Amino acid sequence: MLGSVTLVPVGGIAEVRPGDELAVLLSEAARRQGTPVASGDCVVVTQKVVSKAEGRLVALDADDLDARRELIEAEAARVLRRRGDLLITETRHGFVCANAGIDLSNVDDGWAALLPVEPDRSAKHIRDALRAHERVEVAVVVSDTFGRAWRHGLTDVAIGVSGIAAVLDLRDSLDERGRTLRVTEVAIADEIAGAAELVMGKAAGTPVAIVRGLDRSWFTDGAARDLVRPASEDLFR
Amino acid sequence: MLGSVTLVPVGGIAEVRPGDELAVLLSEAARRQGTPVASGDCVVVTQKVVSKAEGRLVALDADDLDARRELIEAEAARVLRRRGDLLITETRHGFVCANAGIDLSNVDDGWAALLPVEPDRSAKHIRDALRAHERVEVAVVVSDTFGRAWRHGLTDVAIGVSGIAAVLDLRDSLDERGRTLRVTEVAIADEIAGAAELVMGKAAGTPVAIVRGLDRSWFTDGAARDLVRPASEDLFR
Repeated sequence: MLGSVTLVPVGGIAEVRPGDELAVLLSEAARRQGTPVASGDCVVVTQKVVSKAEGRLVALDADDLDARRELIEAEAARVLRRRGDLLITETRHGFVCANAGIDLSNVDDGWAALLPVEPDRSAKHIRDALRAHERVEVAVVVSDTFGRAWRHGLTDVAIGVSGIAAVLDLRDSLDERGRTLRVTEVAIADEIAGAAELVMGKAAGTPVAIVRGLDRSWFTDGAARDLVRPASEDLFR
Repeated sequence: MLGSVTLVPVGGIAEVRPGDELAVLLSEAARRQGTPVASGDCVVVTQKVVSKAEGRLVALDADDLDARRELIEAEAARVLRRRGDLLITETRHGFVCANAGIDLSNVDDGWAALLPVEPDRSAKHIRDALRAHERVEVAVVVSDTFGRAWRHGLTDVAIGVSGIAAVLDLRDSLDERGRTLRVTEVAIADEIAGAAELVMGKAAGTPVAIVRGLDRSWFTDGAARDLVRPASEDLFR
């Protein structure tokens, strides 16, 4: 159907180890399941496997709450709010999220996964490696699971972007009545990350999804740093 | 491909008027384009056409900034922040959004569209009408376009939900290591709304999308009010 988009989970990826080339692991897994990565796809990769491939792992006893808090405080640029064990932080990248984005689930006991140092660069690395190994021109989004200030539940959002706009500026578009639309900067990279989450599940061992059929005009330069609202513009921090 | 999800835009829906039965308009449009609504689908409908069908339209000269501000203040339960023309409001439903969710684009000149009085009921009405007219058992999400406190760009989120969980509680799930996952209340209704937006566009005259292939176990009772974080739990309001 013209204009439709398909979300394809990519499973069967072995445990990711520091130094692994994710582009190779994910493209082999996609081929094995009969859905090879193709030019024009947007490949969404969860932060956890990116952090593992980049060796962003530190020793941490998850039951040692003091050590946990100290690690979070060391990783965060700023702690915005505290409630019990939960710290709402601003990371060095400018992301606002719980516990500086440090992840304890699906990591070996005694270890924690930190956010990539520069997730836009991580996305570009995967994209470049897919081009080199598979001869495909794709976009890449690195996703992570964040809470929201006003709404219950978590959603996946983009923390790294390469090859696609993060925010699509439709401010000058005309609506059907030929009137200029007012507020239409759409955070498509976040919507792509959230869409991919719908087929990944949380405990299903599916750290990658292919988003196929997105508007080709969106495949331009973009970066997740475009999604960061600086504290100076912020009405609530 | 097993486990994949397809997002299908439904175009060709005529201008919606107060009293129109959206379920009939959208199912006829979906059939005309060769993608009839089927049981197990989640149908996403934008707030604007729901508000129009429900007659939630008020006269407003968009250039009269005082009248506009007065309407927003009358519609809002609370104004949280002001910056220039922008008011960040809490609606009577508990949603935090700009300008009490009042919409001026794609509405006839001289008119504004207010949010549905009870969007969960709006979603249930469409779902019941699809069952009655088309003999299909679907979920319905009413979507709207909101900003976020910490991130640039807008995303579509769920303001009305029927027949599917709004927040999926995976807190008791085990990760691949058999360890209980910590933070996994996933706002799937918001991710579904955002995913649908990827095929709707903003100026494309496509107020409906079909999301096909979602996990059947998610089709339980759900309501967008489950997504509302009450002010009492809020760290930032």
